[in-house]
Amino acid sequence: MNKKYSIGVDYGTQSGRAVLVEVATGEIVAQAVKEYTHGVMDEYLPDGTKLDFDWALEHPRDYLEVLEVTIPEVLQQSGIQKEQVIGLAIDFTACTMLPIDKEGTPLCFHEELKSVPHAWLKLWKHHAAQAQANKLNKVAEERGEEFLARYGGKISSEWMLPKIMQILDEAPEIYAQADRFIEATDWVTMMLCGEEKRNSCTAGYKALWHKQKGYPSKEFFKAVDPRLENVVEDKLSNDIYPLGLKAGELTDAMAAVTGLCPGTAVGIANVDAHVAVPAVGITEAGKMLMIIGTSTCDILLGTEEKIVPGMCGVVEDGVMPGFFGYEAGQSCVGDHFEWLVEQCIPKYSYEDAAKAGMGIHQYLTEQAAELTVGESGLLALDWWNGNRSVLVDVDLTGMMIGMTLSTKPHELYRALIEATAYGKNIIIETFENAGVAINELYACGGISLKNKMMMQIYSDVTNKPIKIAASDQTPALGAAMFGAVAAGKDKGGYESIFDAAKVMGKVKDEVYMPIPENVAAYKKLYAEYKILHDYFGRGENDVMKRLKAIKAEAVIKNR
Amino acid sequence: MNKKYSIGVDYGTQSGRAVLVEVATGEIVAQAVKEYTHGVMDEYLPDGTKLDFDWALEHPRDYLEVLEVTIPEVLQQSGIQKEQVIGLAIDFTACTMLPIDKEGTPLCFHEELKSVPHAWLKLWKHHAAQAQANKLNKVAEERGEEFLARYGGKISSEWMLPKIMQILDEAPEIYAQADRFIEATDWVTMMLCGEEKRNSCTAGYKALWHKQKGYPSKEFFKAVDPRLENVVEDKLSNDIYPLGLKAGELTDAMAAVTGLCPGTAVGIANVDAHVAVPAVGITEAGKMLMIIGTSTCDILLGTEEKIVPGMCGVVEDGVMPGFFGYEAGQSCVGDHFEWLVEQCIPKYSYEDAAKAGMGIHQYLTEQAAELTVGESGLLALDWWNGNRSVLVDVDLTGMMIGMTLSTKPHELYRALIEATAYGKNIIIETFENAGVAINELYACGGISLKNKMMMQIYSDVTNKPIKIAASDQTPALGAAMFGAVAAGKDKGGYESIFDAAKVMGKVKDEVYMPIPENVAAYKKLYAEYKILHDYFGRGENDVMKRLKAIKAEAVIKNR
Repeated sequence: MNKKYSIGVDYGTQSGRAVLVEVATGEIVAQAVKEYTHGVMDEYLPDGTKLDFDWALEHPRDYLEVLEVTIPEVLQQSGIQKEQVIGLAIDFTACTMLPIDKEGTPLCFHEELKSVPHAWLKLWKHHAAQAQANKLNKVAEERGEEFLARYGGKISSEWMLPKIMQILDEAPEIYAQADRFIEATDWVTMMLCGEEKRNSCTAGYKALWHKQKGYPSKEFFKAVDPRLENVVEDKLSNDIYPLGLKAGELTDAMAAVTGLCPGTAVGIANVDAHVAVPAVGITEAGKMLMIIGTSTCDILLGTEEKIVPGMCGVVEDGVMPGFFGYEAGQSCVGDHFEWLVEQCIPKYSYEDAAKAGMGIHQYLTEQAAELTVGESGLLALDWWNGNRSVLVDVDLTGMMIGMTLSTKPHELYRALIEATAYGKNIIIETFENAGVAINELYACGGISLKNKMMMQIYSDVTNKPIKIAASDQTPALGAAMFGAVAAGKDKGGYESIFDAAKVMGKVKDEVYMPIPENVAAYKKLYAEYKILHDYFGRGENDVMKRLKAIKAEAVIKNR
Repeated sequence: MNKKYSIGVDYGTQSGRAVLVEVATGEIVAQAVKEYTHGVMDEYLPDGTKLDFDWALEHPRDYLEVLEVTIPEVLQQSGIQKEQVIGLAIDFTACTMLPIDKEGTPLCFHEELKSVPHAWLKLWKHHAAQAQANKLNKVAEERGEEFLARYGGKISSEWMLPKIMQILDEAPEIYAQADRFIEATDWVTMMLCGEEKRNSCTAGYKALWHKQKGYPSKEFFKAVDPRLENVVEDKLSNDIYPLGLKAGELTDAMAAVTGLCPGTAVGIANVDAHVAVPAVGITEAGKMLMIIGTSTCDILLGTEEKIVPGMCGVVEDGVMPGFFGYEAGQSCVGDHFEWLVEQCIPKYSYEDAAKAGMGIHQYLTEQAAELTVGESGLLALDWWNGNRSVLVDVDLTGMMIGMTLSTKPHELYRALIEATAYGKNIIIETFENAGVAINELYACGGISLKNKMMMQIYSDVTNKPIKIAASDQTPALGAAMFGAVAAGKDKGGYESIFDAAKVMGKVKDEVYMPIPENVAAYKKLYAEYKILHDYFGRGENDVMKRLKAIKAEAVIKNR
């Protein structure tokens, strides 16, 4: 009964997951998952209204269900008393945003708006606001807006402003009716504690906010669209709170449905990648965390604000209070391997894997691990889904070179893994060249736990040690840590996320160390990668873009 | 009993095939195949002697068996009288060569030499004489030998002189004991009629012979190796006969085993690709025949000797008497598609093909045929097996660009087909730029009959009409035509191969015509291919060679 616990809820694309963590040790005592009832809505609204191409919506009600189902479940699983839970915090995908009314109710909950697509919540991967993003970028460039450099020179169509602009362009009545637009992570936190305390992470990385300079100017927004002149005051908020604070306390109503005590501390909302940093124990500059999944997000703390070409963003207090949080990313990592396995791996490999009693990824990895560095003769550019950092170019595509009639599936597999490692090294070099040091790498996410060959390749290519998260629930653990910080030391939690990270953040004992012989061999291959990276990626031969343009024409012709 | 027939025997890599053809119509009346009893020997001699890496031998006895089995069979099938067969000729792979004694007996038939690998017959794809080819090329370049230009600047390790040099280097006693070295096609013809009449085709394309200038000089051979000074006089022959002549008449002994009449006319020996030209009715300059198989061989008649960069060879009387025969080639055509199907086509494509009741090639082709030009967004360099023409570089490797997470197997398949079409167009442009006109394309070989989409793509990419051989046994038919010419007009045959070609050579009625819309679309894609072809193939970025060198090192390390 003396032990204290904290709950972290991690909201993913398809489901939400709660973990119950012992505050004094960081041990995950119980966990529960709830798939979203409506899932991703990319074809129809719940009432059957058809959605356009590239849309991706979710149902805000699903997020509340996650709390109603998973929190009682972890309490029950663990057998602890609700009084032992001192804090709670969440993390989310971003920018996942919705229009709400004055009371905070999503517009899509209004009976008369339930058939209006723009009244709904737009998921991070809603990609239908590209035209708006283009306009934003164009005007920002023309006006020489300095904020652009903090975002690698380009605003993504996934972010807050393009999404708002799409609503304004296509459903001005929804724009007018919306009291404000809010990140889902802030909205769910508001539902928990009844207070709107917007977090510095999404404001900074997804909505162009800067701690000293605030949002872009009224003049800028006016130049984009006169109707946007007062978008910040009218539809967003200038009250932004750094991560690590308490947002409020659990309301009676939410206490009733979750089974927790009213008044339980609720932390400022967070984002899935960024929240993972303290969960692996990073509390200082120079250590980059790679969150490896279908894509990879790289988060790094720095002590100064530097402009790094092609980064995704630099935000003060964006990851840990008092630090500049740098974000970069690779748009296609696990997705490469999944594509290969689905579209390119022949029957016989599946049969051989089954005979060996292995999954296909494990089987190809074991075969690939027997190759010496360079033995496949292959080299690839990891751009099957464009390039996020450092080229920031969605129109780049994949390339592979070196195939012969003897080339085998596991060689293709390894070549794609190596390509993502080379891509990572380009990011690291770019940070280092911009004066942001990277001394050590950390990794979390399923692949980092499962694929030892890949982690060794990353260590060999980057010539840096790599530590691996101890938990496979790093973001949820991170959220629970922010819950313990929101509770504070007096309640049995922590005074700061730094204190929490020292105790609760954990990596495995095993550290991947660069193998000098492989480092030397990869140096040669990386040099080749770099030549091709620049040739195809920096304008020397824009064949990828021309092929994409020809393809776009052909697709229209073939309709 | 009035009808006259001719027999053609086509010697392939694994088997020999005889066709019985009606002389007046070119109709194939009967055909029979005999697999070689010993097949390709690339690991062991018949007595168990181990062979080195890259060796490929055959058993000369197998070739005689083909005659003993298939000729009686076609006679029996057709029910005709042996007196009705007026002529016989063969075609062969080349350079497929063997050492013989003074009597014409292969050295490997000598009991005391049967365990000596170099006493055996070396198949065209015996690749163990690369060191000798390199030396030959080096000396020829250093001495500025003009013959080099007639062979695209490079002598292949597959040809006669490197093979002889390997014997001299590794088994000088066999070199000494050999009365002479001879092409298998000439040797089998000699077995048929008892006369050695070496043909101008293999002499020209595979042994550096020139109708006016003869073989390279004694000085050249001496510079290569003093022991080779008199190689032509001592081990080859200066008596070379143009195609279309009679080599001799069937001996009594061969008449007895084949069931034909003694004295039946036997034509000068020929080669499988070159013999196909009259079989599709080509009798004039400007028409290029593509013999499409695992690789493609291109044969073209010209009226002058021009130097075309990167061609395989130009030989007077090398294809049709009185013309300069040009040869070029692509080292990897059907092999590309086979590699893809074996190593890269996923289970689900095979399942879908089975559901549709189709073979995998047919299924992928049908899916690929639904794509508009450019719709895949993909572009490949067709160098999985190096590049024969016009870069003449075995160290080049494959490349593909434009892949996304949506790329599907049938798109990869089409991209490889298109790559071979672009490669073909490079060859055509190179000939045209050198002043050798190409007005029309002809195609033969299984793929050309089966894959209509591919032939249409070739027509669209090259912007030329393509006619397809009427028979799937084009080389054997061509050999039978030379048999009818050897018999002569008086015996019911033809006076010349030109006369025979007009009657017996045939193409299908259907002609592939360029579709203007596709021609325009492919023009853009070909322009991109050409940029990458030159970038990777002409020294701007030798990454393929560097990767191959790294691979070679790594393979040694991993042993």
